[in-house]
Amino acid sequence: MYSSVNTIWVLLGAALVFFMQAGFAMCETGFTRAKNSGNILMKNLMDFSIGTPVFWLVGFGLMFGAGNSIIGKLDPMVRGDYSSILPDGVPLFAFLIFQTVFCATAATIVSGSMAERTKFSAYCLYSLCISLFIYPISGHWIWGGGWLAEMGFHDFAGSTCVHMVGGVCALVGASILGPRIGKYGKDGKVRAIPGHNLPLAALGVFILWFAWFGFNGCSTVSMEGDAIASAASVFVTTNMCPAVACITCMIFTWIRYGKPDVSMTYNAALAGLVGITAGCDLVSPLGAAIMGLIFGIVVVLSVEFFDKVVKVDDPVGAVSVHGVCGALGTIMTGLFALDGGLFYGGGAHFLLVQVIGVVSVAVYVAIVVFIVFTVINKTVGLRVSEEEELAGMDASEHNLSASYADFLPMPVNKNGVAQVMAADEVSKAAVSVSEAIPVTKRVSETDAAVPKLTKVVVITKPSRLDKLKNALEEIGIAGITVTNVLGCGVEKGRTEFYRGVEMDMTLRPKIKLEMVVSRVPVETVVETCRKTLYTGHIGDGKIFVSDIEDVIKVRTGATGYDALQDED
Amino acid sequence: MYSSVNTIWVLLGAALVFFMQAGFAMCETGFTRAKNSGNILMKNLMDFSIGTPVFWLVGFGLMFGAGNSIIGKLDPMVRGDYSSILPDGVPLFAFLIFQTVFCATAATIVSGSMAERTKFSAYCLYSLCISLFIYPISGHWIWGGGWLAEMGFHDFAGSTCVHMVGGVCALVGASILGPRIGKYGKDGKVRAIPGHNLPLAALGVFILWFAWFGFNGCSTVSMEGDAIASAASVFVTTNMCPAVACITCMIFTWIRYGKPDVSMTYNAALAGLVGITAGCDLVSPLGAAIMGLIFGIVVVLSVEFFDKVVKVDDPVGAVSVHGVCGALGTIMTGLFALDGGLFYGGGAHFLLVQVIGVVSVAVYVAIVVFIVFTVINKTVGLRVSEEEELAGMDASEHNLSASYADFLPMPVNKNGVAQVMAADEVSKAAVSVSEAIPVTKRVSETDAAVPKLTKVVVITKPSRLDKLKNALEEIGIAGITVTNVLGCGVEKGRTEFYRGVEMDMTLRPKIKLEMVVSRVPVETVVETCRKTLYTGHIGDGKIFVSDIEDVIKVRTGATGYDALQDED
Amino acid sequence: MYSSVNTIWVLLGAALVFFMQAGFAMCETGFTRAKNSGNILMKNLMDFSIGTPVFWLVGFGLMFGAGNSIIGKLDPMVRGDYSSILPDGVPLFAFLIFQTVFCATAATIVSGSMAERTKFSAYCLYSLCISLFIYPISGHWIWGGGWLAEMGFHDFAGSTCVHMVGGVCALVGASILGPRIGKYGKDGKVRAIPGHNLPLAALGVFILWFAWFGFNGCSTVSMEGDAIASAASVFVTTNMCPAVACITCMIFTWIRYGKPDVSMTYNAALAGLVGITAGCDLVSPLGAAIMGLIFGIVVVLSVEFFDKVVKVDDPVGAVSVHGVCGALGTIMTGLFALDGGLFYGGGAHFLLVQVIGVVSVAVYVAIVVFIVFTVINKTVGLRVSEEEELAGMDASEHNLSASYADFLPMPVNKNGVAQVMAADEVSKAAVSVSEAIPVTKRVSETDAAVPKLTKVVVITKPSRLDKLKNALEEIGIAGITVTNVLGCGVEKGRTEFYRGVEMDMTLRPKIKLEMVVSRVPVETVVETCRKTLYTGHIGDGKIFVSDIEDVIKVRTGATGYDALQDED
Repeated sequence: MYSSVNTIWVLLGAALVFFMQAGFAMCETGFTRAKNSGNILMKNLMDFSIGTPVFWLVGFGLMFGAGNSIIGKLDPMVRGDYSSILPDGVPLFAFLIFQTVFCATAATIVSGSMAERTKFSAYCLYSLCISLFIYPISGHWIWGGGWLAEMGFHDFAGSTCVHMVGGVCALVGASILGPRIGKYGKDGKVRAIPGHNLPLAALGVFILWFAWFGFNGCSTVSMEGDAIASAASVFVTTNMCPAVACITCMIFTWIRYGKPDVSMTYNAALAGLVGITAGCDLVSPLGAAIMGLIFGIVVVLSVEFFDKVVKVDDPVGAVSVHGVCGALGTIMTGLFALDGGLFYGGGAHFLLVQVIGVVSVAVYVAIVVFIVFTVINKTVGLRVSEEEELAGMDASEHNLSASYADFLPMPVNKNGVAQVMAADEVSKAAVSVSEAIPVTKRVSETDAAVPKLTKVVVITKPSRLDKLKNALEEIGIAGITVTNVLGCGVEKGRTEFYRGVEMDMTLRPKIKLEMVVSRVPVETVVETCRKTLYTGHIGDGKIFVSDIEDVIKVRTGATGYDALQDED
Repeated sequence: MYSSVNTIWVLLGAALVFFMQAGFAMCETGFTRAKNSGNILMKNLMDFSIGTPVFWLVGFGLMFGAGNSIIGKLDPMVRGDYSSILPDGVPLFAFLIFQTVFCATAATIVSGSMAERTKFSAYCLYSLCISLFIYPISGHWIWGGGWLAEMGFHDFAGSTCVHMVGGVCALVGASILGPRIGKYGKDGKVRAIPGHNLPLAALGVFILWFAWFGFNGCSTVSMEGDAIASAASVFVTTNMCPAVACITCMIFTWIRYGKPDVSMTYNAALAGLVGITAGCDLVSPLGAAIMGLIFGIVVVLSVEFFDKVVKVDDPVGAVSVHGVCGALGTIMTGLFALDGGLFYGGGAHFLLVQVIGVVSVAVYVAIVVFIVFTVINKTVGLRVSEEEELAGMDASEHNLSASYADFLPMPVNKNGVAQVMAADEVSKAAVSVSEAIPVTKRVSETDAAVPKLTKVVVITKPSRLDKLKNALEEIGIAGITVTNVLGCGVEKGRTEFYRGVEMDMTLRPKIKLEMVVSRVPVETVVETCRKTLYTGHIGDGKIFVSDIEDVIKVRTGATGYDALQDED
Repeated sequence: MYSSVNTIWVLLGAALVFFMQAGFAMCETGFTRAKNSGNILMKNLMDFSIGTPVFWLVGFGLMFGAGNSIIGKLDPMVRGDYSSILPDGVPLFAFLIFQTVFCATAATIVSGSMAERTKFSAYCLYSLCISLFIYPISGHWIWGGGWLAEMGFHDFAGSTCVHMVGGVCALVGASILGPRIGKYGKDGKVRAIPGHNLPLAALGVFILWFAWFGFNGCSTVSMEGDAIASAASVFVTTNMCPAVACITCMIFTWIRYGKPDVSMTYNAALAGLVGITAGCDLVSPLGAAIMGLIFGIVVVLSVEFFDKVVKVDDPVGAVSVHGVCGALGTIMTGLFALDGGLFYGGGAHFLLVQVIGVVSVAVYVAIVVFIVFTVINKTVGLRVSEEEELAGMDASEHNLSASYADFLPMPVNKNGVAQVMAADEVSKAAVSVSEAIPVTKRVSETDAAVPKLTKVVVITKPSRLDKLKNALEEIGIAGITVTNVLGCGVEKGRTEFYRGVEMDMTLRPKIKLEMVVSRVPVETVVETCRKTLYTGHIGDGKIFVSDIEDVIKVRTGATGYDALQDED
């Protein structure tokens, strides 16, 4: 006889945890660049789509089958008897769908940290492996009656089982892949690559927070007897921890960076949610608040640590949020658990068990996923080519011209990073903002010996901007004006499809660089441009030369040659 | 005595199915163009807003009233006795709201396929009709105790009753409307019109998938007794089918188009969800997986079929997803049903009933909605004018200047299609990418007979781009550089409102076309531009002529006249 | 012994009402400008994050503690006995989380109306106060057993308790702040500042509508006995009212503005939801429909009233939606309540109580929040500086370069308002569209006395556009072409961070103004530009002068000087 309320609770949880896929997809898309949006969305969809049948065919059996303390057993299509492990009054299929969406969550975490450079086919293979055996085996240890469960390891809704597993895979994957082009300068200095759609990312976080009430709350897998009060308590702690983490992070970044950081604070919400997940049923609201305080700081330091010290390029902070805070939250349950926690007189035993669980799962996952990624890397290859990465994964992996077809993109530099807009009006001190204006040249009025002013215009591919800019700076031209234009011509060669229909592309994006030169000979400028742009391929561009009568610098009133003689 | 759990289940379902409106709105908006976003959002909101009171006043009675086997009866404001048809322990109003959101779903399906060209007033009239009687009457046959129900027709949550009804209306509507301007070339060749916001569309799909757990799962309308296990099973099959459909579509498009297609794969998720809806309670997870395999391929072929063969322009694929997969899913229930399906030894009877149901509903809806659209077409008119369509429905139907007011749009060609960005760095072979750079001309150095180089700049309305480009190509000018600019002047005439306040518009979008000419006489170029742009109205534009000293082609090093002599 | 179904219902409600935060965040972000998106998202997150611990530490006790009829008592961390006020069978913590999310809703309402100009630190302080005592005290009167509750005041789910409280705070806050720069012209005429992302705003509204089923429906805080039918009825009325409000608003704006207004109609949905909230359990579907009819008109008139008459700048209409419709809905419950309403023979007593409740809460909140905002204003200051506001709050308050880093923004005028695109092809009458094209000048052919044509190009900061445009118009130059360009140079001074990493900014946004002059002497143009742009700071810009050979006006065929002599 099944229980109505327990089954409602479990199914409600399954639907909510499924909805996390939307949260992850929006979050990861928003925190990365527009040119990779379609690819990220595709990877998120595939994580879930591949995970569903694979977990049903293999994963569920390995995780919950009555095997030994290390592994369950193979039970394709879930036909075995799971009565010993099923929650009271919950049908097997309700438990199956509930566990399926948890498995898919672990898989999806990884796509964020490997974003913007991973080969799509390689990613699909990895995604297959995590749902096939990586997650189910450690899951068996924790939730399937395995050795950690026997030892008393407590991970209520999956800080370790789901999030840290995902986080460790993310760390290993991002390490093997290496950083995105442009993330680190030649001097090793880290550079910011801003996400392209903050509102979408924020929506993702709100969706995740909402769905987390299902993730944690419905993990009571019952709404009868003691589970009722427990579920209520879980809702309170699950909400308190991220709230305090957000406040803490907001204040901490305010102090550290001078202003409260928006995207980091949104990350802190997730850090708090991940961290409370293991012990949300055992800690008090006060404990949850203190934990939130810690996660709100840890997430910032951890993101900086991986960015600047370890130099693992993790575009969305998945390693810090899911890996670090997942591990930390699980261990801290050993401190804050009202019953058994060190801070509540429970001694060190429970804490020790938590540490053992976290370490052993981390080591297991790291080794296995390292092997998986290495094998993939040696066979199909893990990373796209430099050209493909610069062009964007939408184009190179999916023949998708643009995820935002109707909008003009920003010009990108050689790193493939859009040149972001600066708020140049904010400066208050007269000399605090220095900026560049096109190099110009003085017009000869009486002094005929002064070199004349010449305008040089270069039209070429957007991807050449940075290289050309650097080359021109080297010959003494500091100021250039750049405009996004469309070059009109006939496209031959590669065919792109949109929903099965060939794309018609007669206008192609170009950039126009304009500069006015005087001191530097025109011939030198032209020659430099030619050398820099030349590849011998059609599309290297053209250079136009024309006269200009005069140039006036507004600030100084200098004209002609003199107006061009400093870099502002 | 009402049942707590049954009512919770039904109301939860109602809320989730309502949320589908958000999914459809995002999906349809994302898969169409930015200039029509406000209009699409308005149509989605109106589908639900009109449907709610109309279904309460008329539709519900016609669908569930104790009439005959063809039609229920008129029961304004739902005051009758429905005890014979109400689910156990569920209050009438819970059932009313549950059915209202299902009705609105059917209505909303149509807006996608009629997007970007339908008169708003006409659309509202259609929307009124579907909720008033089209959907309720066939709904009565299936769910209201009508002749199909008596015959044993099985459509658990509405593959036919909701989705196919919407899909057939979509097909008829899109057929009568005709394709969007630019969808088909003069040679009849189909052209892609990419959606403007893929992340939004993907979010819509995730929302729909999430809400579908309510659509199908809560259609048990009970969580007591057998319904508990049934709901759990429905969750599993409802999830399995779209997951497998996505994998299949991903692989199928990879083979067919060379790369896995993002937007088509997202469509496949919906195809799987629609297809499994009729039989989600009767099929096994394995059956659901096999069905998903079929839908993942069918949706691709069907989209291509309607695009290329039937030439019905369905911007979001609603006909294929809801119509074709809805019908197919209902029929396949007759094959895959564990109890009664042909593949499980149930014989052909059940299959036959399913076919009869699908065909009769399709024929009924097609006839009735054909009449409805024809009447609307003859009276208020179904389609906006060509100018309105090109300008975009936001402007023409809602006086809304832009749904994305702070962003620069891409230049549009005469079809109103944004000229999408090409990933021109992806090409690996030296000659695989051919592209265009402004036509230029050699500067005379010693040879005074060589025609001089002249720069011609045209500033005109964005909508003239395509026509002018073609005209210039005809006189031998293959390369033009196009820039989005804003022309500054005083706007007279039409007034636009935003939230009741007049819009101030002193900067108007223009395009600047630049070309450097040598071989073609300047007079010819100017005359061609004038003839092409002339309408006699204010705003035809201006042409500027100036000298240019030299032009250098980077690839060849050719200068002046020679640098302009081929099309790259 | 706790009730499974009641607790499920309350917790489901808590999750759904939490999700409203996503709705508000998207709605407020979409209806404002891109340059403030990050700030708005941050404020929304902080409303909830601050509210959660504060309500737990202080608010809940003040609201529900067994104090007197004016105020509860201080009960940090909710350790008291609330058995007298707890719903049947619902654990205290379930009730706590349910009330927490309601409190946060009230707080969040305000961020919309104070958007785009409020100092972030000041906003955090306000947000602290509303959750600390403003909301809990009036909440105690209504829901905590206070004097209004004793008097029989009925506010089922919070039209007054939540929404009007937020709306009154919004009104007071927006009044003290004053309007955004550019909202009112020098002549006092109101100007539209369009939102930057309508699809996001629409998504927000759909999310809110969805979540409102939890807000109202789950406010039965029970799913046993009579509550079952009541919840069902609440779902119907909660849905009917906004649906009818949307239809009404659509028709009303169609008549009033000539076209159905998209953003106003979406506002009407919220107006209907807010308005029905107080009486959703007492009115019939017919009553709800009539109320929707009223709210659909009132919201339009109210938005216009505050915009044009009171001149309070409320970017998202929060005052009208939450304040006015919240108050009106509460009062109208006294008319439409089936049991006790004036229209159903209940006499005036109940109506009077409703009026007393609304007025007293409004007066209380207005006074207290006025003091709060005044104190904040005198200490930390409520409003950012003019430069900060023009630059955008993302940059000035969060060092966030752009919330949409990969897209080109529209040029902004001096009001910081993007110059929106006009649909200039819609005009049907030959002379209805007048527009501007760059001023040009005739080239001398035979007549050497005619002044020559000169092209003047100015490159400067985007924020100078409007001032320069006006100055040039004054000296007789009516037509300018404006292009967004990027100036390349070295940035010194201010450092921006993105997720802890310094931003690298070598391309800075500039605008290029191009004009061709003939009648007006070049010297005058140059001098005017210099005087207008001069600040003495680096970055004032440069002016380029060059020859142009000829200009041809397409419409008239006039060339040279003559082509420049009128404003089209």
